[in-house]
Amino acid sequence: MSTPTVRRTATTLADGRELIYFDDSEPYVSGDATRRLDDPRPLPDRFTPVTDADGVEHPITGPEMRYDVLTGEWIPLAAHRMNRTFLPAADSNPLAPAKPGAAYADGEIPAEDYDVVVFENRFPSLMRVPGVPDETHFVDGNELWPARPAIGRCEVICFSPDATASLAQVGARRMRTIIEAWADRTTVLGQLDGVEQVYCFENRGKEIGVTLHHPHGQIYAYPYLTPRTAAMLQQAVGHRERTGRNLLRDVLDAELASGRRIVGESEHWVAYVPAAARWPVEVHVAPRRDVPDLPALQDAEREDLAAFYLSLLRRLDQFFVAPDGSPIALPYISAWHQAPVRTGREDLRLHLQLFSVLRAPGKLKYLAGSESGMGAWISDTTPERIADRLNEVPA
Amino acid sequence: MSTPTVRRTATTLADGRELIYFDDSEPYVSGDATRRLDDPRPLPDRFTPVTDADGVEHPITGPEMRYDVLTGEWIPLAAHRMNRTFLPAADSNPLAPAKPGAAYADGEIPAEDYDVVVFENRFPSLMRVPGVPDETHFVDGNELWPARPAIGRCEVICFSPDATASLAQVGARRMRTIIEAWADRTTVLGQLDGVEQVYCFENRGKEIGVTLHHPHGQIYAYPYLTPRTAAMLQQAVGHRERTGRNLLRDVLDAELASGRRIVGESEHWVAYVPAAARWPVEVHVAPRRDVPDLPALQDAEREDLAAFYLSLLRRLDQFFVAPDGSPIALPYISAWHQAPVRTGREDLRLHLQLFSVLRAPGKLKYLAGSESGMGAWISDTTPERIADRLNEVPA
Repeated sequence: MSTPTVRRTATTLADGRELIYFDDSEPYVSGDATRRLDDPRPLPDRFTPVTDADGVEHPITGPEMRYDVLTGEWIPLAAHRMNRTFLPAADSNPLAPAKPGAAYADGEIPAEDYDVVVFENRFPSLMRVPGVPDETHFVDGNELWPARPAIGRCEVICFSPDATASLAQVGARRMRTIIEAWADRTTVLGQLDGVEQVYCFENRGKEIGVTLHHPHGQIYAYPYLTPRTAAMLQQAVGHRERTGRNLLRDVLDAELASGRRIVGESEHWVAYVPAAARWPVEVHVAPRRDVPDLPALQDAEREDLAAFYLSLLRRLDQFFVAPDGSPIALPYISAWHQAPVRTGREDLRLHLQLFSVLRAPGKLKYLAGSESGMGAWISDTTPERIADRLNEVPA
Repeated sequence: MSTPTVRRTATTLADGRELIYFDDSEPYVSGDATRRLDDPRPLPDRFTPVTDADGVEHPITGPEMRYDVLTGEWIPLAAHRMNRTFLPAADSNPLAPAKPGAAYADGEIPAEDYDVVVFENRFPSLMRVPGVPDETHFVDGNELWPARPAIGRCEVICFSPDATASLAQVGARRMRTIIEAWADRTTVLGQLDGVEQVYCFENRGKEIGVTLHHPHGQIYAYPYLTPRTAAMLQQAVGHRERTGRNLLRDVLDAELASGRRIVGESEHWVAYVPAAARWPVEVHVAPRRDVPDLPALQDAEREDLAAFYLSLLRRLDQFFVAPDGSPIALPYISAWHQAPVRTGREDLRLHLQLFSVLRAPGKLKYLAGSESGMGAWISDTTPERIADRLNEVPA
């Protein structure tokens, strides 16, 4: 198994954001300079101060985050996202390749074709603005309310140039390229000053608010440990102190020993429904070897993952069946849990959590009073039922 | 200020569930025995074993909860709720009073009228089944996966006999009765063996999955500390250890000192948007006096709360305005945070958290990859904008 050739071509959009092509097919579609890599759109630099109607200049300060003293969590306030001054037309697709011969792209991507592309989100909830110091201040001067710039980064990853595709259909070669891009971004973003954690994820389906159907995911680099990661780290450290062992390794071994909720195995990967699954559909995917994150995966593990993950997605798209017998494309959130950048490298083991809010055809699990008010999840099914259903559908 | 007369009449439904009328108006509408209090429906007792088609008897075991070792949370599995054998017809309203002269009620409430009524949910996610011991076992025999009966209680509270009303319209007298019922249930459920926390809440609006429009709320008695309560307790204990003071008291004092996010004040209550609000609309309501829970409120505080809360609800229903200028009834979750039963009585101070997922007319905040995958909330607005808008609308 050798490392596949993926050509990585970095460029800059007209407003200064970074865009990176990951091309896997010769001739490298976006790497062909005759098909344009640059972005000739007349966009102002994103950090240029905005001058209002009265001629007053407003410097770009970027998003702020505030410390919620009631829960100990940081809450980025991405209110600037509501002041969007350059929105694409309602019928345009900002992730489509540029049209051949057009003066400039309607959307975000200047090249006339691409395999996989990553770029900085135009309206990020996490962003470092040059010249804005990473200093704490206090809201209304009160020490109960620390606030800091919400530095970090929000990126978009396009899985295919085809707006009508879905990730399940891209093929193993392209999926492998996506894995390479995830690993690249995890490494690069993890080295940014102040970033504590890198999170690769995909939201799919209008049921979770996705209005853009072009297949894409997102990558967030947070300047803090997220609540779920912090909780998992606390549990893992406690487990290591009690037993000397890695919690996520022990969970994987326990699932394999039981076998009751295993829904897929390959040479390097195992998929199981966790024993305390909280969502109507939930599957975890873990590597057999202990690794902290995607960059730590070896070639053979990445290659195997590409096929394994696509197979799982195809099965999930058969989990629910409409009254006429046709399968229902599952709305899902696919969440890669990786070890943080600076802590928990030995305790937090890479795994994917893939879950859905669909509990039956046309019926959603809502996060209402118990979940949203108290953070107390209640499941309407059992992990064993989820596993049994997944094991019924053809691979 | 004297305690108002509320007649409390407890009875039992045909399947053994408890139902309690709270009547405030003479003649007490449901307390009038000539208008029937008993439930003549031919329902089997809810704990009677179910015999299947093969004649095999299945004992009722009730919901189980499993320990999620990755996060340290308990997850009740209410899978038995999916086996609903006695569902009301689609067009019937189970919360309506019985029709005069009918052989028995179509819905859950036998009386032909009522002011406020509370009863045990027919399909609870938390329930103690007599004879089922409150013992831990291990899923698949593995110590990583403790499981226990999900004891506790889920109750429904009907705010009005009028299916077309909303809580904002019930009037201060009836609202006071609802507060009496909440306090009663907090006291009584808190005394149940194994209950750690009582939670009174209301889900309103189809946007959060409410399909039954009859005005009603719910009351959960949990057998564990919920994640939000546990986080608040940890923060409050840390604050007390550092400062000697109560965190929630200090937050209230800080909001009053700042004044920037205060949205309402009365003799006994203060409403403010918290400095790190995470929802598109969020208001907290706190008493001026330190109290752990609703039962600790004095008469004058309860009376004042009734008017104050109704006024806040009416203002929230004007927060968003449709393109034609008409106000939009706000979908919301109204969550009473009370001190737990056995711990944190000095640290956790009563407050209401009222919030909405509506971020603009017709636009919802979805809990997608960041919130649902990582527990990391991102706000699209600022607490100050929320407060400014609330202070614009007429009281």
